[in-house]
Amino acid sequence: MEPAYFDNNATTPLDPSVMSSMRDAFDLWANPSSNNSNARKTALAISEARREIGKMFQVTSDDVIFTSGGTESNNWVIDSAVRLHKYNKRVGKPHVVTSSIEHPAIKEPLLRRLRDEEIDVTFVEVSPETGAVRVEDVLTAMTSSTCLVTIMLANNETGVLQPVAEIGVSVRSKFGNSVFIHTDAAQAVGKIAISIPDLHVDALTVVGHKFYGPRNGALVLRSRAEVALEPLFLGGNQEFGLRSGTENTPMVVGLGQAARVFNEASEEIEQRLRGTRDYFEAQLKECLGDEHKVHFGASPRLPNTSSVAFLNYEPHSCHLIENCKTFSASTGAACHKSECSPILTACGIPFSIASKTVRFSFGRSTTKEEVDLAVAELVSLTSRSKK
Amino acid sequence: MEPAYFDNNATTPLDPSVMSSMRDAFDLWANPSSNNSNARKTALAISEARREIGKMFQVTSDDVIFTSGGTESNNWVIDSAVRLHKYNKRVGKPHVVTSSIEHPAIKEPLLRRLRDEEIDVTFVEVSPETGAVRVEDVLTAMTSSTCLVTIMLANNETGVLQPVAEIGVSVRSKFGNSVFIHTDAAQAVGKIAISIPDLHVDALTVVGHKFYGPRNGALVLRSRAEVALEPLFLGGNQEFGLRSGTENTPMVVGLGQAARVFNEASEEIEQRLRGTRDYFEAQLKECLGDEHKVHFGASPRLPNTSSVAFLNYEPHSCHLIENCKTFSASTGAACHKSECSPILTACGIPFSIASKTVRFSFGRSTTKEEVDLAVAELVSLTSRSKK
Ligand SMILES: Cc1ncc(COP(=O)(O)O)c(C=O)c1O
Ligand SMILES: Cc1ncc(COP(=O)(O)O)c(C=O)c1O
Repeated sequence: MEPAYFDNNATTPLDPSVMSSMRDAFDLWANPSSNNSNARKTALAISEARREIGKMFQVTSDDVIFTSGGTESNNWVIDSAVRLHKYNKRVGKPHVVTSSIEHPAIKEPLLRRLRDEEIDVTFVEVSPETGAVRVEDVLTAMTSSTCLVTIMLANNETGVLQPVAEIGVSVRSKFGNSVFIHTDAAQAVGKIAISIPDLHVDALTVVGHKFYGPRNGALVLRSRAEVALEPLFLGGNQEFGLRSGTENTPMVVGLGQAARVFNEASEEIEQRLRGTRDYFEAQLKECLGDEHKVHFGASPRLPNTSSVAFLNYEPHSCHLIENCKTFSASTGAACHKSECSPILTACGIPFSIASKTVRFSFGRSTTKEEVDLAVAELVSLTSRSKK
Repeated sequence: MEPAYFDNNATTPLDPSVMSSMRDAFDLWANPSSNNSNARKTALAISEARREIGKMFQVTSDDVIFTSGGTESNNWVIDSAVRLHKYNKRVGKPHVVTSSIEHPAIKEPLLRRLRDEEIDVTFVEVSPETGAVRVEDVLTAMTSSTCLVTIMLANNETGVLQPVAEIGVSVRSKFGNSVFIHTDAAQAVGKIAISIPDLHVDALTVVGHKFYGPRNGALVLRSRAEVALEPLFLGGNQEFGLRSGTENTPMVVGLGQAARVFNEASEEIEQRLRGTRDYFEAQLKECLGDEHKVHFGASPRLPNTSSVAFLNYEPHSCHLIENCKTFSASTGAACHKSECSPILTACGIPFSIASKTVRFSFGRSTTKEEVDLAVAELVSLTSRSKK
């Protein structure tokens, strides 16, 4: 029997309807800027996908820019903010406010520019009680040279939701449009409903393969007319001149279809994920009691994610998941005695506990039976009383 | 009847084997960095694609970096060269040598940095006799601050091959490894055999959709161990740490298959293209005589491309292709009375002739019958004697 897949925050399989939409779109091979009948069909399919993504975030199709993925979207936002700081002749070195628990696709490009002395960065710590940044810490970090605030919507390892809407409102009201507000929503998209107007962000990163879509992504704007954004790629002026490169029609169509699937059933999807996760955590509580700890279980979290330390499991959690036959999951770190997830450490979790932690990220089709089998195996491997 | 497609330099349809390889690869949905059986299969498929691309250019699979397309590859090379100039504490502003006939994906990012006063650029003119840059002009343009030479391998509109190998040898012998030598081979790949060792370039841009592959691309290096390259995207350290972002497995597999198709039949493919194009030009000569002109017909050119001015056609060539029912092709400019292809102008072709020019780019499956029909229609629409 194949192990159950509890690693949906790493990537998801393709939704069957996404797969078939892409298969069909292989026939839309024309260059949409050309002047022939296939090109017109292609341009239409792209604009339908754009509309569906816009709908997903309560903006218009004009506000959607397709990219090659989350890494591109994140790197782009940083590049644009730094460039605009210069163009707008703002004082001082560009300053960026971010959290200490961002994905490497935000953290690493910031660290490079910091090392190159191109920018200053404040990495706002998260509260060890909640796993979330505090709005006041973000505000305190702001300077007159701040050009970008980028805080992820949900952490990929703990699932903890960050107070992006409150940050959006506060930053906007105190600093107006001089600061670009971005959120990396890679993990939240397709799991919870998201409204860009409610978040008050300028831009949001979307990653297809985290919600049953293809390996491309988007940068979605509050309003393309109102938000200043500088292209990262220049060339043939595709994507409203903001992201050049011949359109990747099949992937774009697939991303649109992944959005459609969510748009048509967002509440059911969220409830189903939450049901699975809550059931899993209830079973663990019953069977393991204080032999386990769910990190930030009291915080608002993604509905599908459970970060669990198995406190009586002596070796590293990577051995635990290697030994588990009923499911696959991840630990957020290479399998080394001395390593643990840097994200958990940044959340204030001590090494001794972080190194015993497994991230379970359930999917839309995870079953109760799969959870039951996994819990039974986890209990037999980690509980003193059962051994 | 569908018009014949003579616009293969804009984009090509997918080779059927590429399409089916991608369909199969939709099942390889795992994150190749994960630890499960699908992930291992996925990683294997990616490395096979890498090997096939390496083979296409006579380098190893270690030298192949997958990107989202030609626009990314080109923008990346510029970003890296400028960054390395700074890291290596080279004197003066970074200086770039390029040609006046590059694709916007080279030209526009250079112009932005020039405007931003980050770099100096020399746009080497092409000879109006040959449509190619002269090696000595490239060498003359070099300064002690030159960090990048980027000259396309074949022009997309005229098809004229540029003397990249000679430039590679000369620049390398005079300037050693202090200069990054790049060629945008978007149009040459899949039409002629290309050897990176013979070209003496450090890197070469590959675009899948120009040779029956998908809408992604690659940057292929002479030797990853020897060539200094700075990442454009930072994040999860995929692609040897040089291009972060979760691997787009189906597209990568498709690109590998497109390379395999060419690798297995490169000579036949080139001959077939050349046969079609030469037949077309011979027919035009016979039927139109001095009522037409093939631009740079005596220069080494791509085997599939024919840039033809219809001298007795009074209105703009865009009206000509709009009126043609038997084929679709392109003019390289928006359909405006006052516009013509800026590439043709840069090649020294006067407006009066450039504005009457059509680019015919034939494909691997273009037939003699399609060419015959097109020639007959072109003659009837453009020849004085036949009207
Ligand atoms: C929070 C977050 N941001 C960004 C990314 C980057 O996405 P990708 O690797 O697909 O570019 C990921 C996933 O890996 C992620 O979890
Ligand atoms: C010479 C050349 N370079 C680069 C590109 C850019 O490729 P893409 O638009 O697929 O990124 C093209 C095609 O449009 C091209 O013809």
